[in-house]
Amino acid sequence: MKQTSGAQALWAALSAQGVDTCFANPGTTELDLVRGLEALPEMRCVVGLQENVCTGAADGYGRMRGRPAATLLHLGPGFANGIANLHNARRARTPIVNVIGDHMSWHLPYDAPLTSDIESLARPVSGWVHRIAGTDDVVPAAEDAVRQSLAAGGQGATLIFPADYQADPVSAPPGAAPAQEPQKASQADGYDHAQALGRLRAGRRIVFLLGGGGELSGLGVRAQRAVSRLASVLGAAAYAETFPSRSERGQGLPAFDRLPYFPEPARAVLDPCDLVVLAGAMPPVTYFGYAGHPSALVEPERLLTIAEPGLPVAERLERLADALEAPAYAAPVHALPPQPEGPLTPAAIAAVLARALPAQAIVSVEGGTCGYPFYAASAAAPAHTTLTNTGGAIGQGLPVALGAAIACPDRQVVALVSDGSTQYTIQTLWTMAHEGLDIVVLVAANHQYAILRNELRRGGAALGARAEAMTALDSPRIDWVGLAESYGVPATRAATAEELAGQLREAFARSGPALIEMAL
Amino acid sequence: MKQTSGAQALWAALSAQGVDTCFANPGTTELDLVRGLEALPEMRCVVGLQENVCTGAADGYGRMRGRPAATLLHLGPGFANGIANLHNARRARTPIVNVIGDHMSWHLPYDAPLTSDIESLARPVSGWVHRIAGTDDVVPAAEDAVRQSLAAGGQGATLIFPADYQADPVSAPPGAAPAQEPQKASQADGYDHAQALGRLRAGRRIVFLLGGGGELSGLGVRAQRAVSRLASVLGAAAYAETFPSRSERGQGLPAFDRLPYFPEPARAVLDPCDLVVLAGAMPPVTYFGYAGHPSALVEPERLLTIAEPGLPVAERLERLADALEAPAYAAPVHALPPQPEGPLTPAAIAAVLARALPAQAIVSVEGGTCGYPFYAASAAAPAHTTLTNTGGAIGQGLPVALGAAIACPDRQVVALVSDGSTQYTIQTLWTMAHEGLDIVVLVAANHQYAILRNELRRGGAALGARAEAMTALDSPRIDWVGLAESYGVPATRAATAEELAGQLREAFARSGPALIEMAL
Repeated sequence: MKQTSGAQALWAALSAQGVDTCFANPGTTELDLVRGLEALPEMRCVVGLQENVCTGAADGYGRMRGRPAATLLHLGPGFANGIANLHNARRARTPIVNVIGDHMSWHLPYDAPLTSDIESLARPVSGWVHRIAGTDDVVPAAEDAVRQSLAAGGQGATLIFPADYQADPVSAPPGAAPAQEPQKASQADGYDHAQALGRLRAGRRIVFLLGGGGELSGLGVRAQRAVSRLASVLGAAAYAETFPSRSERGQGLPAFDRLPYFPEPARAVLDPCDLVVLAGAMPPVTYFGYAGHPSALVEPERLLTIAEPGLPVAERLERLADALEAPAYAAPVHALPPQPEGPLTPAAIAAVLARALPAQAIVSVEGGTCGYPFYAASAAAPAHTTLTNTGGAIGQGLPVALGAAIACPDRQVVALVSDGSTQYTIQTLWTMAHEGLDIVVLVAANHQYAILRNELRRGGAALGARAEAMTALDSPRIDWVGLAESYGVPATRAATAEELAGQLREAFARSGPALIEMAL
Repeated sequence: MKQTSGAQALWAALSAQGVDTCFANPGTTELDLVRGLEALPEMRCVVGLQENVCTGAADGYGRMRGRPAATLLHLGPGFANGIANLHNARRARTPIVNVIGDHMSWHLPYDAPLTSDIESLARPVSGWVHRIAGTDDVVPAAEDAVRQSLAAGGQGATLIFPADYQADPVSAPPGAAPAQEPQKASQADGYDHAQALGRLRAGRRIVFLLGGGGELSGLGVRAQRAVSRLASVLGAAAYAETFPSRSERGQGLPAFDRLPYFPEPARAVLDPCDLVVLAGAMPPVTYFGYAGHPSALVEPERLLTIAEPGLPVAERLERLADALEAPAYAAPVHALPPQPEGPLTPAAIAAVLARALPAQAIVSVEGGTCGYPFYAASAAAPAHTTLTNTGGAIGQGLPVALGAAIACPDRQVVALVSDGSTQYTIQTLWTMAHEGLDIVVLVAANHQYAILRNELRRGGAALGARAEAMTALDSPRIDWVGLAESYGVPATRAATAEELAGQLREAFARSGPALIEMAL
């Protein structure tokens, strides 16, 4: 009988637990893991040219599927390259299983060039870190990793796999697939329906905050409809959290705005309310600390938690709506913005995209320039899914779009991004071309770090010469069309709304990726 | 009197300690640090579009100057993006001062989206990590950071600077510049000249291993000459360590080979020797663990340490050579390889570059394809400096070239790199164009991860279909000329030795950066 290597056993165990995709950037200490995949064609491997591409793609995949993809990363430095997008995934509560090859266990004491403290690097972005201790540990570790990735509402589970145990034969290969596909576990919590009902009835000015996530989250279809009924019967307002991991949007759904980013407008929403109802959202805090504003925007006594993030909240909201005899959900009809004309502006881009968006599209949004205007315009677009940057580590827009396209091959994916943030993981374009994915990348090219200039100008401050130089990206201007084409992604440039509309139509009609540079 | 902010005080204190350059990718929590630079034009700020560009550039700068540049990075995720090249810098013993803006100190408990455990991320690549505890701590912390960066032969010193202390006024601004420019401190060690002399006299078969670093390191001019004299009088061999942080090369110097990378040829050098003399090098260990080979290639009893890495070893070697009455140094005359013709090969590339290299060039080498052949050919080139990848975290070739060009504006810089590794920090091209630096980037484009294929094929193993797919970069082929030009770097493609020679001549003659795709 042919022996099973530790590496083969790991992949088989992950596969048996429902992991079917690996975003990989392997190195020498992962070569037995690469060899171990030869016999497992059902594990799809997607190569990224830099590790943050892989981890961001695993985030996009996990947000859409609700179960983990694996990443395959090279030792401490390779893993480190992927930390930023794992940080975003942590904030999105995305299940991910990271597999890191390490030196032979007996080689570690010699402090060879690539040796580093992998655990110290992994812990800040992993709910669970485990170093495989021998070949007997491979299968249990793989099973634990999938289980752990789905715990706590979804988290990073990181396996460190020494090279010798990858190559060595295992005595007990993994068993068959579990009867049920693993899903994020429901956690027990202290929710009390009667108490919630009482507080809703007693509230005078109420606002709902909806948290993003899977189908049963606050920003899934069912919960949004229930909140719409509740808002109607209670005379309440409702907002999405500022950066939802995933939200359903478009025709047939309410047009909940996002809670504003800056503290002044956020407080204008929250301060007048005596009850802030958390439907799968965390208690709101300011993004950064701002002098003169409290970090916690709502005191605990004004908060009512229906469900914490990651818990299925839809059923509870529906029961509350029924108990309050709220009217049946009436789908609002949102009017599409008129077809804009002339030079591109963020509002024009939003309108063009909202009008052109195919049904069931997935939109990965990153960058301040177009994100908010699109959110406002997209209520009238066909039903679609939006993914935003949850953790503030920039460079997630393209990788998350990549992962979503791998997870949902039948859906059109759009990456609505800005030039500054897109540079961090620009190599993603190659994998989009390599895999021939239906992704349209829309780059708002204003050739500056606009978000930093906005922050520098807060309170009417002038932009100093140094600050201007350090936030300028216009010398030279990056040629986005040439850049995309050099990675094999067909690209065009649009300077007017009419050009954008035409190029977008063509890009959606064609299969495979495309990029449109939107000149602002 | 105008008040000094914490940020201004930090920069002034760093400047007073000799820090004149900052490689920056700031975010919102660094905006007061950006404002603080307005009044300090003598601090040169170089913007990178991704953090690993900044940290790698600080490494290149530090290797050439022997004192630290600063980096300016955004919170945990921004710092994380720069860890890989800080890992290489750690192995190179390069002094670097990292400045990380953090949230307002009072905002941290609220676990806002960008909050993470920065210390846990920083420690693996920092010899010293310090969180500024208040405005009184700013100036001492800055002074400590420079001192610490120069300790232990050179290391990363990481300052975490909460945003509130950046903005608050300091009561005691920093004093004037120190009388002496700080340099790496000499450490006391147990070196014993007489004992070393005795062991050299008793040795029957001796090999010297020279470590890289500054002018007085094993691979500086003086030490190489002394080792040449010693080798001559002792009948000894001499090798450079496999991946020196910095070495002087070319006409007038001995042509020491590098200790081979794979264990078999390395052992063929070392095993027959009864004495292995470490001249600023670490005891050699295998790069990875290889079954059947010891990790430590030389047992302690066969080792003689003249000086540990980071210590000035030249004087000790000269004293030993004098004591052994070694002949005066005779500069060998190396013959340039003939001008190659026809299709490009690694050997042809090496010969063309060696023949064309301007005097005093700095060559940043990364990637297996051309690095070794160039090292062999370059002994006959004009005197130049070579920088290699010390820690195995790939993506250092371009950033280190960038930093070296900032450190040494009068010297021509060459980045001799491979296509796979260069993708990790491709954004560096923009900064090269933005700063108009005299850097010629030579990309060996074989459209594969050749080093992984070499490792997979070790021992005659066949390359599986999966392994081949996961190491292929040819679908699509990256258009390196288009890529470089989209970042504003003029580029050409060479398929023959004649084309490369002509394009190289033109690139060296022009000011500003250029890229040549070398089709292999």
